[in-house]
Amino acid sequence: MKLKARILAASLLTFSMVGTALADVSWEDIVNDAQTTEDVLMYGFGPDAQRYSPLTKINTENVDDLVPAWSFSFGDERQRGQEVQAIVHDGVIYATASYSRMFALDAKTGKKLWQFSARLPEGIRPCCDVVNRGAAIYGDKVYMGLLDASIVALDKNTGKVIWRKRFGDYKVGYTMTGAPTIIHDKKSGRDLLIHGSSGDEFGIVGKLYARDPETGEEVWMRPLVQGHVGRYMGEPSTPTGDPNAPSWPRDENGELVEAWRHGGGAPWQSASFDVETNTIIIGAGNPAPWNGWTRWPGDSLFTSGQAYVDPSNGELIGFYQHTPNDAWDFSGNNEIILFDYTDKEGQKHRAGAHADRNGFFYVTDIDARSKRGGDINRPTALLNAFPFVDKITWAEGIDLKTGRPIEVQGQRPPPPAEGEKRGASVQVSPPFLGGKNWNPMSYSPDTGLFYVPANHWTEDYWTEQVTYSPGAAYLGMGFTIKRLFEDHVGLLRAMNPTTGEVVWEHKEELPLWAGTMTTAGNLVFTGTSDGYMKAFHAETGEELWSFQTGSGIISCPVTWEMDGEQYIGFASGYGGAVPLWGGDMAKLTREVSQGGSFWVFKIKNIEQASAQ
Amino acid sequence: MKLKARILAASLLTFSMVGTALADVSWEDIVNDAQTTEDVLMYGFGPDAQRYSPLTKINTENVDDLVPAWSFSFGDERQRGQEVQAIVHDGVIYATASYSRMFALDAKTGKKLWQFSARLPEGIRPCCDVVNRGAAIYGDKVYMGLLDASIVALDKNTGKVIWRKRFGDYKVGYTMTGAPTIIHDKKSGRDLLIHGSSGDEFGIVGKLYARDPETGEEVWMRPLVQGHVGRYMGEPSTPTGDPNAPSWPRDENGELVEAWRHGGGAPWQSASFDVETNTIIIGAGNPAPWNGWTRWPGDSLFTSGQAYVDPSNGELIGFYQHTPNDAWDFSGNNEIILFDYTDKEGQKHRAGAHADRNGFFYVTDIDARSKRGGDINRPTALLNAFPFVDKITWAEGIDLKTGRPIEVQGQRPPPPAEGEKRGASVQVSPPFLGGKNWNPMSYSPDTGLFYVPANHWTEDYWTEQVTYSPGAAYLGMGFTIKRLFEDHVGLLRAMNPTTGEVVWEHKEELPLWAGTMTTAGNLVFTGTSDGYMKAFHAETGEELWSFQTGSGIISCPVTWEMDGEQYIGFASGYGGAVPLWGGDMAKLTREVSQGGSFWVFKIKNIEQASAQ
Repeated sequence: MKLKARILAASLLTFSMVGTALADVSWEDIVNDAQTTEDVLMYGFGPDAQRYSPLTKINTENVDDLVPAWSFSFGDERQRGQEVQAIVHDGVIYATASYSRMFALDAKTGKKLWQFSARLPEGIRPCCDVVNRGAAIYGDKVYMGLLDASIVALDKNTGKVIWRKRFGDYKVGYTMTGAPTIIHDKKSGRDLLIHGSSGDEFGIVGKLYARDPETGEEVWMRPLVQGHVGRYMGEPSTPTGDPNAPSWPRDENGELVEAWRHGGGAPWQSASFDVETNTIIIGAGNPAPWNGWTRWPGDSLFTSGQAYVDPSNGELIGFYQHTPNDAWDFSGNNEIILFDYTDKEGQKHRAGAHADRNGFFYVTDIDARSKRGGDINRPTALLNAFPFVDKITWAEGIDLKTGRPIEVQGQRPPPPAEGEKRGASVQVSPPFLGGKNWNPMSYSPDTGLFYVPANHWTEDYWTEQVTYSPGAAYLGMGFTIKRLFEDHVGLLRAMNPTTGEVVWEHKEELPLWAGTMTTAGNLVFTGTSDGYMKAFHAETGEELWSFQTGSGIISCPVTWEMDGEQYIGFASGYGGAVPLWGGDMAKLTREVSQGGSFWVFKIKNIEQASAQ
Repeated sequence: MKLKARILAASLLTFSMVGTALADVSWEDIVNDAQTTEDVLMYGFGPDAQRYSPLTKINTENVDDLVPAWSFSFGDERQRGQEVQAIVHDGVIYATASYSRMFALDAKTGKKLWQFSARLPEGIRPCCDVVNRGAAIYGDKVYMGLLDASIVALDKNTGKVIWRKRFGDYKVGYTMTGAPTIIHDKKSGRDLLIHGSSGDEFGIVGKLYARDPETGEEVWMRPLVQGHVGRYMGEPSTPTGDPNAPSWPRDENGELVEAWRHGGGAPWQSASFDVETNTIIIGAGNPAPWNGWTRWPGDSLFTSGQAYVDPSNGELIGFYQHTPNDAWDFSGNNEIILFDYTDKEGQKHRAGAHADRNGFFYVTDIDARSKRGGDINRPTALLNAFPFVDKITWAEGIDLKTGRPIEVQGQRPPPPAEGEKRGASVQVSPPFLGGKNWNPMSYSPDTGLFYVPANHWTEDYWTEQVTYSPGAAYLGMGFTIKRLFEDHVGLLRAMNPTTGEVVWEHKEELPLWAGTMTTAGNLVFTGTSDGYMKAFHAETGEELWSFQTGSGIISCPVTWEMDGEQYIGFASGYGGAVPLWGGDMAKLTREVSQGGSFWVFKIKNIEQASAQ
């Protein structure tokens, strides 16, 4: 009986896969992503990017019975850097993989439906491994960024290329690793595909793009370096903020300095979208070069902060800078999670939460920041800010009044002395890899806590002479990443956004480079660099379950429901920035096997199995 | 409580791994491998190579509850051709991987204890992918063959190289992919490391070696081409059989033909060992070149048959040729399983079972063949022979009296006509990839059946002009592998060795390239090219369980017991000969992802888990 039932189920599945086209995806579907349990349609699980699922079938009581349902190998003798968050729709998993690949997999069986492998030119320049963080889905298409500074739309049912647009010159350092985002512009009634670029380490000008998801045609482009001019419908539009770029210095001839021409600020992670105010919210990267003296004096706007962009015209309408004149490559890219914040006085706010590489957790007022008109740069009206890692050296804290960091003197490494190639070394924490890097935190409205995948480490840091050369690293800084504590580097912290309190924490020997996910089953999931997917009790932090996948996990887990059962899916495959840039921490992970596979788990229910 | 118990268990494990050296392995351990359930010490699970485990904890009743315990990625951006059978000893799994690597893994957790990666020179010539089929273990060492025609001994506790011996010139085609074998020479009381070489497709002379397992020093070497001279303790010893090599033709000058100088016959799979008669039993490869007219007339001894070798001096003492003057690259390498055979008259024999690439299953009399003295070549005294695949075209059957095939006329493709480069094409079944290839069958003494991983396919086959050039393919034949049946290629057959009856069969869409294993739990395990590990009812063939591993499985499963629980382990990672040589069948597997991981499964027992 059991066998027959299986065969029948398999035939039905085959029929439904072959016989009917899969359903298309609408903005309505995407905006409700956080509420619908049968799909995962957006990086971050919806415009709020909370990475919270209302599913409860897997919970603290039964998570110990979670077992693999299947695994899939990305193949191709290409195994490194699997940072993807999968999209799940209509029984199909869309998982991007390193080297600009995408796989469509039958969510039930793991069978490959199609594969897309970008043909990449020689000379691409991804700073931090050949990673890709995920796809967007809309209509009958899926979208992904490519390492050659392109974005591609594929037929979601066949994997065939519908359009492919190159937006930058990969030879000078433009590339794309982040997941694109579908948003809906309330004003025009138009759905748009939003994406950024990477390349700050090579001195590119960071740009945000909006495209027609059907054709790939650019609607607008917004550079994030103050005074650089945007584009709208193919024509130059407005400068970004003040055209005179007063936050950048000028040379003896009154010209803006060389650094300004490159500038950085790349929005290389994914946007959140505030539906109520019709605002794109996205982190902006570090200024280029890293060496702050090349940009001194001035705050190097609009870098290392969070940007608020009007989807109708691509205007930058608001900005909050976490690290003015960022001299430490803290960048501001990490995700901004939209949530309902209750302050100490019990007052409610529509807020954004952001755990920055600089070690501080920021709660910002979304309404204040997305308001049209007035100064773009709005350092004040910060709701809360507190450290989420220990032993921060570069600042004593964030002044909630001014919104600016209270910098510790001497933490900006001095310029090289006359005739020297490099300056004196300063120990800085967090190091440029961040108290937390790209790997996203999650928020549970049930517990009211943020689950922050953090790291404790430090760096020796010094200035170096720097001149711009196209396609060469444009840093002006040298560094060695080092251990901060003997017993751990990785640190999963459950943080109370109101009090800044660490409710619980879990330490990992190796750096944490995976995203977290939380569920109404009172669980937090994340992966470890030594290969485990783990589940924790969301309230207590008790480790309730783990499974060894054989390679380091640096991806973002997702969950969905299928035929009445809840599934967990994620990629395993070590890589990313740590083994490339991590100094002593790279050595620490040297024994971790590379890998490239997608895993799906479900509850093994013996009773159910026996009853069939 | 559960958590605490786990932490305690983990500490104890760490202590036992670090604090004490692991136990050494003796011949006593190896010869009893088939009976002991806590280890797997030999390729084939002991000298009889039955691949049968007496374990019953996983059985037909509960196999459906088998779930992954952990997985391990071999890493290195090297994913192809994982044909290993693992060795398990003292809580450690020794798994070789493609590109001449070995991994020692904690059997409980999957944690890597050490890794060995051979530095391979440019210009290695593995005919059929960069595979490795497994290690041998003895004393404090593990052994594996390398693609550069070397064999290496590693400290089993650290992975450090103890010795490494190159036995052939990899530039002319010598290589090694098979698992070496530890045997005990009853006469000298000495334990020996036995291994062969690969390279018949490049026209090497196939040789079998015996070494001192401690030092790697060669004790003897035996070439398997008639008339070639062996070596004993570093000195030329005896010719192999008749020094005049009457089974090879001579040219107009009375000289043995060019083909004889290359000859082939490489024993590239692993030996069985008959303890009672103190005899090494191993298959010999195809003659070189494939083109039979270069070796016509004559049987091309001692190729494409099974060889019986005296471990004391390396003398070839007996031989049975499955395919005289093999013109089809059938080779004779497939494993020889030693078992107690009962013939149709109810008489018992100590027998060897061999399913040849030529499509016939042979039951040979071990005592008759291993007798010292008399003619080495003993085609008679065959106990039984019958087809194990359908539609064999090259022979009507095997004459049990003469022991020779009853060849079908016209199945030896004719030589090229005068002035032509290639001859007329002939359709031959099985094709050179065989009714069954290297992937070993297993035998259950409980059911009395052999579980044969076979394939149904055919080939267009024609002669080509051929001259020897060092390091170049030396075939003299062209081919295209094609489909034989519409609905399947792979075919798992349970065969009765007495009646030749197919008791049950299971069809697979893709070629079967994994070994089988059978257990006292009444189960047969094997892997499929489309990624499933499957378990079948040993008596009925009912498929009771499967799990999708994400890459094709072409390895050999093992099972062992640890802390009272039974485990199953195997590698996943597609590759091997089919995608390289398989014509239409290679196309059929094109969508299979490459991979490189080791998997361990156990029964998920909810009751037990809850009771902790």
